[in-house]
Amino acid sequence: VAQESRAGRRPPRQKPGVKKQQIRETAIDYFGRFGYEETKWADVAAAVGIGSTALYHYYESKRHCLFEIMVDAVEAFRARFEQTVADHDDWTEALVTFLVQGFKLTDQEVMRLHVLVAEYARIATSSSAAQREEAARTALRAATRDLEWAWGTFLARGMESGVIPETDTRLLTRALLGLYNSVWQWYRPGSTSSLDQVGDFFVRRQLSMLGLSPELAERYATPV
Amino acid sequence: VAQESRAGRRPPRQKPGVKKQQIRETAIDYFGRFGYEETKWADVAAAVGIGSTALYHYYESKRHCLFEIMVDAVEAFRARFEQTVADHDDWTEALVTFLVQGFKLTDQEVMRLHVLVAEYARIATSSSAAQREEAARTALRAATRDLEWAWGTFLARGMESGVIPETDTRLLTRALLGLYNSVWQWYRPGSTSSLDQVGDFFVRRQLSMLGLSPELAERYATPV
Repeated sequence: VAQESRAGRRPPRQKPGVKKQQIRETAIDYFGRFGYEETKWADVAAAVGIGSTALYHYYESKRHCLFEIMVDAVEAFRARFEQTVADHDDWTEALVTFLVQGFKLTDQEVMRLHVLVAEYARIATSSSAAQREEAARTALRAATRDLEWAWGTFLARGMESGVIPETDTRLLTRALLGLYNSVWQWYRPGSTSSLDQVGDFFVRRQLSMLGLSPELAERYATPV
Repeated sequence: VAQESRAGRRPPRQKPGVKKQQIRETAIDYFGRFGYEETKWADVAAAVGIGSTALYHYYESKRHCLFEIMVDAVEAFRARFEQTVADHDDWTEALVTFLVQGFKLTDQEVMRLHVLVAEYARIATSSSAAQREEAARTALRAATRDLEWAWGTFLARGMESGVIPETDTRLLTRALLGLYNSVWQWYRPGSTSSLDQVGDFFVRRQLSMLGLSPELAERYATPV
């Protein structure tokens, strides 16, 4: 990371990975609490104690940082999905485990998902000259497409083996992801309902939507 | 509308309601196709053939127009809901009719819903001095809250009368609205699947989520 620093610019004093992570976490906190548009990029720099020139080593722009946060969110979801499928031979067990784990999240992960769904429409906006921003945007599009593809393939397997009723795979994928993503539009750490309550409720709805018994949620739920 | 024109400014030549409607429809088209951020407010003015001074008679800002478009979308949904409930004595019939009608939309209504869900996060952003924009934003918050309340009350009635299983009303309302709204994130007029296909699929999923038979969709579906 941050290898593209231009000649003549002073390199950052700290280990680049650590500082970049720190900026990203602060940005998630600011974007999540105050909104992306309301956040001044200079305030993020000040909060992590660096000037705007040094900040540029890590992120070309506020939007570049936003896109990388979104890529992280999508890729974390995808990695968890791949891992769960690899860990469980039984299709239903893999499914339920994955759905349940979708709500076992840290406050930081919840905020990251909130930023993802609240600001996703910005994927459509471009600033012509920004190369690294453009690369992050392309990565976000690719990660989203890959995720939908992975989910769709998994659901198709469930249909082929007769565990869930045959239906339009693409629409089913979008319905499941759409319902899941909708939670992060309104849920915040510290909301009236706990994340466990919300998760229990939504996993049951996802199972119903798949044509499965909502009771499966309890059968396969792993204690945390 | 547009009564607040300042003294000394030339009043619009056309009937204010007609011109305002024309601006709003053009804005929906531009925001929906190119994105809100990408749309230049001056281009909307040019497309309807007025200058930016005249445009100000109708809308204080691009965001003021956006908020009014969103209020329209929420209020149209709400009005349709009230009407359907008034027209049907039977709870299940009212429910299914309302869900089915949720996908009987013109291209313009689809685009308006797309603008609503894609740009909803902007409700969090304010520009201090803009009075009419602020009023529209307050109206949007109120309309959203009223809509959730109306849906919640209706669902509670279904639970009390034993038609659907007892559960958390607030979470069920959010799940139903969340799934419905998710469609407008990706569906566009002219998508691969027709709106009828998408509607048929999602109404069945909404019924399953409610603990009802998806087959009800056919029993109460009104031919269009």
